[in-house]
Amino acid sequence: MAKINENFLKLQAGYLFPEITRRVRKYQQNNKSTRIISLGIGDVTQPLAPAVVDAMKIALDDMTKENTFRGYGPEQGYDFLIKEIIENDFEPRGVKLDKSEVFVSDGAKCDIANIQEIFSTDNVIAVTDPVYPVYVDTNVMAGRAGNVKQNGQYENILYMPCTAENNFLPQLPDADVDIIYLCFPNNPTGTVASKQTLKKWVEFAKRKKAVIFFDAAYEAFISEPEIPHSIYEIPDAKNVAVEFRSYSKTAGFTGIRCAYAVIPKQLKAYTKDGKTVDVNHLWNRRHSTKFNGVSYISQRGAQAVYSSEGKKQILGIINLYMSNARLIRNKLSELGYRVHGGTNAPYVWVKTPDDTDSWDFFDLLLKKANVICTPGAGFGPSGQGYFRLSAFAKPKNVKEAIQRIAELQI
Amino acid sequence: MAKINENFLKLQAGYLFPEITRRVRKYQQNNKSTRIISLGIGDVTQPLAPAVVDAMKIALDDMTKENTFRGYGPEQGYDFLIKEIIENDFEPRGVKLDKSEVFVSDGAKCDIANIQEIFSTDNVIAVTDPVYPVYVDTNVMAGRAGNVKQNGQYENILYMPCTAENNFLPQLPDADVDIIYLCFPNNPTGTVASKQTLKKWVEFAKRKKAVIFFDAAYEAFISEPEIPHSIYEIPDAKNVAVEFRSYSKTAGFTGIRCAYAVIPKQLKAYTKDGKTVDVNHLWNRRHSTKFNGVSYISQRGAQAVYSSEGKKQILGIINLYMSNARLIRNKLSELGYRVHGGTNAPYVWVKTPDDTDSWDFFDLLLKKANVICTPGAGFGPSGQGYFRLSAFAKPKNVKEAIQRIAELQI
Repeated sequence: MAKINENFLKLQAGYLFPEITRRVRKYQQNNKSTRIISLGIGDVTQPLAPAVVDAMKIALDDMTKENTFRGYGPEQGYDFLIKEIIENDFEPRGVKLDKSEVFVSDGAKCDIANIQEIFSTDNVIAVTDPVYPVYVDTNVMAGRAGNVKQNGQYENILYMPCTAENNFLPQLPDADVDIIYLCFPNNPTGTVASKQTLKKWVEFAKRKKAVIFFDAAYEAFISEPEIPHSIYEIPDAKNVAVEFRSYSKTAGFTGIRCAYAVIPKQLKAYTKDGKTVDVNHLWNRRHSTKFNGVSYISQRGAQAVYSSEGKKQILGIINLYMSNARLIRNKLSELGYRVHGGTNAPYVWVKTPDDTDSWDFFDLLLKKANVICTPGAGFGPSGQGYFRLSAFAKPKNVKEAIQRIAELQI
Repeated sequence: MAKINENFLKLQAGYLFPEITRRVRKYQQNNKSTRIISLGIGDVTQPLAPAVVDAMKIALDDMTKENTFRGYGPEQGYDFLIKEIIENDFEPRGVKLDKSEVFVSDGAKCDIANIQEIFSTDNVIAVTDPVYPVYVDTNVMAGRAGNVKQNGQYENILYMPCTAENNFLPQLPDADVDIIYLCFPNNPTGTVASKQTLKKWVEFAKRKKAVIFFDAAYEAFISEPEIPHSIYEIPDAKNVAVEFRSYSKTAGFTGIRCAYAVIPKQLKAYTKDGKTVDVNHLWNRRHSTKFNGVSYISQRGAQAVYSSEGKKQILGIINLYMSNARLIRNKLSELGYRVHGGTNAPYVWVKTPDDTDSWDFFDLLLKKANVICTPGAGFGPSGQGYFRLSAFAKPKNVKEAIQRIAELQI
């Protein structure tokens, strides 16, 4: 008798974005002529950079000729891309990496969902609250969580509240934890971590022999020069941290699929009886057994992100999104909203007026302003009374959405 | 303390293809001017079909304009592709599917590696011997296997020998099994299953309440009209089977990455206390949580596989590979080798002369003929004394390789 993995039955049905889709669809059905503007899901809207497109055209052309055709590439990614990653994303920030420490993949969501597989199911994981749901759900599936509680959190997972009181920066846990998920610039709050903050976490992880999963998917949006882009800018971080990067938001690759993970050679984890094991080696075995490499065309596109033309064009697109973020921040501040993030991140995290419930405010914004936000409570109990606005929409839509919110006169 | 998944330590170091690469590299280093021909790893060599390239060009162009740009697609794949899959791959064979039963992915290897996750770790799995190593290794990682035995097989996994004596068709197990991996046309033996054979398996699975993972990655190479292309051509198969398909070999997509899995709505598995659970629902949750869709450009390419031009061009490419297979079969038969497969599959499975050890014969072929094969023993103990030749090489290389083998005079 084929038995299912019963951990899946613990998962909550209402995953955040499908629930948003359901509510929007229902409203649109009853209001067919209404033009709804989405500042909800964090998906890019600007076309690919021309340098990227040109590189992908050449790659596609390679596939039409016998002598340049590419079949299976290395599961870990082509050297031509890994070389650019190391030389552009890390070396200028004083971080040296070997090419065997970089694993190209089809998405940071996939990597961060899969990485837990190479660790024992009896590790205690710590996540922030609010949190990107994938960190939690993949651990529930693997069996690291107990049942779901009234507030939507799971037993056996350590949640670290991030609120206005602590500037949305989690405090070091008192309890023993083995694996810590950190995301800076943060989704959903838009908070960044200083070197000092990250140093505190690296030291904590060393002390606990814990591993940090550092999600840096939004690093390209950091504007303040003193903010670190990589956790490896902190001494000793290579001993305790895996870092996840993505071209999805950086270069508009959400429909193209390319990302990478860094697993330093010196990162160790442990057997139950305390022997050290090389995490890079385990991930390499996992990656090459269960994955078959990223599209050659996507990898050539990613390579062009690092060309001088590519860099210039992509910076232009990022600046466009960040001017959206600035507009959202400034206008909502003027309107009297308490506003966070949006300076080093494409997300603005806003307090609902009069502590309105997040989903109630979502409904109000949908029905009165025809604007979609993401209700903060969807990211966890500490997100209650907040909503997230994404800066990835088209500028004219952002302007109109903000105008509509201004007219709400709450 | 971050503890590793110790199941990974049970995995054998010498995965088949890296070991081949190692031996070839070493030989080439000492024989720099030698031109080695590979009939080893099953990777395509022919350029993409022009209709596929044209569709991908248009898709790439879509990504350059604001109003046609595509960000995140549905994790399950675009409807435009799923529609073609259902109407072309299944309906003509009498199989009706709902679009929610098809999950587009970036590779059949990934799907077949990941599918076991939604099942309990205490299921007993059955695989053939010889076997595609991914089926076994992913179950070892998940904890469904004991330690490795002298012969390279793992404790707690049921191996079903496929030998010349049973025409390389596994017999129904006597023991209770919960999950059965079947691959037809088979990699590595090139064997196909008749409707009668598959019917026997479907009935067995029904009786045992087991689930069949049916790997049909090579179905496009079936030439004999009476051989089923899908397990769903068998009545009731939807109640017991998941099917995996791929564009990798069919349409030369090994570097493009697109595949799909079919999980019928009526397929049920069970909780420990015997309640039925909808497998499609579990997979959908897994797929949408851990995966973020396939490249839009790759999906447009896959869609073009079903255009009338695409079909014609792809058939031409498949015929080219199959004429390679025919040449290998016929010439090796003439030379006195005992030859199997190669009629409905791009692989020819050959007995080594005088029962020579597979790896010894691999070395002999490499050193004396400068031809790479895949040693049968790499697929399991029943593959000992066999070697696999792939028909995916360029025709002139196949001709030369066969000529060199002929000159061996073993």
